Order: sequence, then structure tokens, then C-alpha cells
Amino acid sequence: MDKKAYEDIHIGDQASFTKTVVEADIVLFAGVTGDFNPVHVDKEFAEKSFFKERIAHGMLSAGFISTVLGTKLPGPGTIYLGQTLQFKSPVKINDTITARVEVIEKIDAKRMLRLKTECYNQDAKLVTTGECTIMI
Amino acid sequence: MDKKAYEDIHIGDQASFTKTVVEADIVLFAGVTGDFNPVHVDKEFAEKSFFKERIAHGMLSAGFISTVLGTKLPGPGTIYLGQTLQFKSPVKINDTITARVEVIEKIDAKRMLRLKTECYNQDAKLVTTGECTIMI
Amino acid sequence: MDKKAYEDIHIGDQASFTKTVVEADIVLFAGVTGDFNPVHVDKEFAEKSFFKERIAHGMLSAGFISTVLGTKLPGPGTIYLGQTLQFKSPVKINDTITARVEVIEKIDAKRMLRLKTECYNQDAKLVTTGECTIMI
Amino acid sequence: MDKKAYEDIHIGDQASFTKTVVEADIVLFAGVTGDFNPVHVDKEFAEKSFFKERIAHGMLSAGFISTVLGTKLPGPGTIYLGQTLQFKSPVKINDTITARVEVIEKIDAKRMLRLKTECYNQDAKLVTTGECTIMI
Repeated sequence: MDKKAYEDIHIGDQASFTKTVVEADIVLFAGVTGDFNPVHVDKEFAEKSFFKERIAHGMLSAGFISTVLGTKLPGPGTIYLGQTLQFKSPVKINDTITARVEVIEKIDAKRMLRLKTECYNQDAKLVTTGECTIMI
Repeated sequence: MDKKAYEDIHIGDQASFTKTVVEADIVLFAGVTGDFNPVHVDKEFAEKSFFKERIAHGMLSAGFISTVLGTKLPGPGTIYLGQTLQFKSPVKINDTITARVEVIEKIDAKRMLRLKTECYNQDAKLVTTGECTIMI
Repeated sequence: MDKKAYEDIHIGDQASFTKTVVEADIVLFAGVTGDFNPVHVDKEFAEKSFFKERIAHGMLSAGFISTVLGTKLPGPGTIYLGQTLQFKSPVKINDTITARVEVIEKIDAKRMLRLKTECYNQDAKLVTTGECTIMI
Repeated sequence: MDKKAYEDIHIGDQASFTKTVVEADIVLFAGVTGDFNPVHVDKEFAEKSFFKERIAHGMLSAGFISTVLGTKLPGPGTIYLGQTLQFKSPVKINDTITARVEVIEKIDAKRMLRLKTECYNQDAKLVTTGECTIMI
């Protein structure tokens, strides 16, 4: 986990992180956040819901964006200022999610970066889109 | 966890969720997301960092917002469409965080709600601000 | 968990511990160690890899050896001095792994024991071999 | 996590991973491995033991070596063949452990690498030494 210097980061730079979201991840995420929305933890409820099965918490995928920012681009030392998230489609158990970030603007006066952030599944279907702002 | 109907929700309605963020929460959140940014998991690094000590993942507090939406207002059945987040100040180990949401707009044609979302600590210091859009 | 005295342990003494390695074990082991090697946590990557599916961390099985030493033979009070490990075949999700230790040498002057340590799966296939040295 | 090709790895190459070992790590490691040796999970027992306080499982630090191998050097695709471990000193709760690996031999005929592996704490005190063999 090498921290990249502001000067070494360029518009168009990309990084990603991939992980399969398994049932235990949902159990643990619910346990830590207290988000026991039955669509995540109640199989019977979820099967009768709009989504037809249990889905992962949207913020779990959002967490993968933070993983890329904090461990790869720019890496340790990043200060996370803001994030927008649009939840486009649900993440189901055993979906493999890739969070990808791409630098789209450098704001030199403040050593800030704006990045496009998106998460997609194993079928290249977008699950989350958005942008973030960070400072180095 | 009673699901509220769109018609029973009014502008100004509020709900909140409060939890102390302990060291084990950070361990588990890192474990689920893969976010081992040393500012979260390396005490020595964190003490020399901008923040002077280990801090919680920003998305952990954001997860508490989802907890309120999915379990209280409006409750089960909520479809989370989008969220904006500004990270205002860090969450430290043993901080007690309250996530509070307040309905600020009803979009009847789409049965959508816009809510102000904020997280603050035991000293009423804002740690996260933003807005979300949901559909019932 | 009874601690055995050095004098009561003989060459040839054996003990074992058995556990099914489930998906949640891999999630938690990755979460504690930070080992998010995609062969452990990315189903898509793993299916295209040498192993054709996700496998457990080798050190998880090695941990079962420590379980036998620290809780059965010799039990609480054991001081773990060294371990060699050869990873012979992968542990797959839902494999049932037995860690077995057998005393092969007593070094009376130092109250040290040398043990053969091996882990095998439900088909008696060796997954890990090696030796350890402990002191009582 | 970029996989390094065998040809791009040279004798002397190094990589490391650092994490503070907190109480929750020990709880989770015990839970996954079943190693409930009281020196790890029984404060009263541990305080009267040789170590005077609870210590972390040796295999937890060993797991950090695997983290470096599988995510940094050489990264994804590594096949772990063997590891030797000497446990030199105990890891206490809140110790910050760095696992460092260094390539010491390349065995071209088999595309194998031999690496020196060591873990040390925040005071640069060695807790684990050893070597590993991997194949790319």
C-alpha cells in the first residue's frame, strides 16, 4: 500500500478492487451497522419483496470504493471529503462486485481530486455510480 | 420495524439510530470491505497521521443512515435510490454516532422521498451530512 | 482442556481437532489477516485460476494445528517455538479438515517436544504436513 | 493487487503489511480456528501464565505473511508451497505487527521463489522469523 503523491496522479488514472459478496458479508455488515432491514436478513420477507431474494446493503458496495481509495489510488493518507452514490441495481448473494475509480479532475490549489466511482457485477452490470472528492 | 406507507409520511418527519463505534466494529468493517487503509487498522501509522489516532471508516457511519431508512423511516420495503455524503469530521474509536434522517420533499408522481441525512457524535459535532432519495 | 505434564507425555501420543471450513471462516480469516488474495475472496477470479474455485487460506488449516497443541496435547501452558508447513493440496469451501499431531521426540534437558503435524480432509487427502517444536 | 511476473521479481525485492493486533482480532481468530487456549482468551489464566497477559495466536502473525505474498509480492496467483516459522516473542494486544518478506533465491527451472519472512512489532522486536517457498 504505497501512497501516491498528488503530483504523480493524472487524469484518467484508474484502480479497482474485486470481491464476491457472500452471505457472511451481509451478516457481518448488518451486525456492525444495525441495518437489519428484512430485505437483507429475512429470506422469507425478501422472497416476497420487489427483489425476490435477499440483497446486500448498498453501503457494502460503497465500502469497496473506499477500499480502492484508501489502499490503492491514492492509497494511505487519503482524506475522504465527499461521495455521491446512485444505487442502480441490487447486489445479490454471491455476486462478484468490482469497485472502480477513475481520476476525472485535479484541483491543484487545494490538492483535491475528483474521481468517478462505479461498482459493477460479474456481468458488467452497474450496481452503483457516483463521484467522490478527496484530498491528499 | 413497521413499514410506513407513503401517504403516512410527511415533510418534517424524523427518525434516528445511535450506536457507539467500537474497535471491533472497525475490525469487522475492514474485514468485510477489505479496506485496510492504515489510518483504520494501524495504530502507529494513525498516530503520526493528520488524524492523530485510528478513525472509523466513513462508510460505517453512512451505513447507519441506511439503518434508519430501512428499519424506521420509512422502514422495510424502502428502495434506496441515491445518497450524497460529505465527510465533515472523523469518527474516533468509542465515539457514539447518531444517524438522523428528516423528510424534506415528497415527489408524489413517483412515490419518492428526499431526506436530509446527517450523522453526529456525542458532542453534537457533525461527522457526515448529505441527502438521500428513496422510493416506497 | 487439561494441561498435560511433560512427564506424562510419551512418544507416539496423538491428538486431533476437526472442523468444516465454511465460507464464513474464509470471510473472517481474510478480515482478520487482511489477506484478500482473490483466490480466497473473488469467485470469478478463482474459477479461472489454477485451483478452479475459491480455496481457504493455508494458515487457517495451520491454525487448527495450534488448536490441538494449545487445547489438547499438551494443552494450556504450551509454548509454541516453531512450525514447518508444506502445503500439499488446497482446502476448498466445505472441506472438513482434521489437524493431527503426534509426539515424535522428547528433549528432556529443555522440556521440549517435537511433534509431527498434519492436516487432511474428509477424503484422507493430506493438505498440510510439517513438524513443530514446543516447550512445556 | 497486480500480479508480478516471475521475470520481474529480483533477489532483494521486499514488501510488507502492517496491522495493529487488537482484542477483536484474537476473538475472531479463536472463533475461526477453535484455538481457545486460555493464554489467548482467558484473562485470569493469562495473567498467571509465563506471558503475564493475553497474547495473540502465533498463526495470526503468520497469516500476515500470507497477506504480503498473496496481495503484494508476488500478488494474486501465488502458489504457497511451504513456510517455516520460529516464534521468537509473543504478540500482545495492541501491538502493531509488520510482516516483511524478501526474495532470497530464484529457482528458475521450477519458477519457484524462496523468501525470508519475518514479523516484528512497533519496537522493531522480532516476533516471528522463517522462510517460505512459493511458485508463480
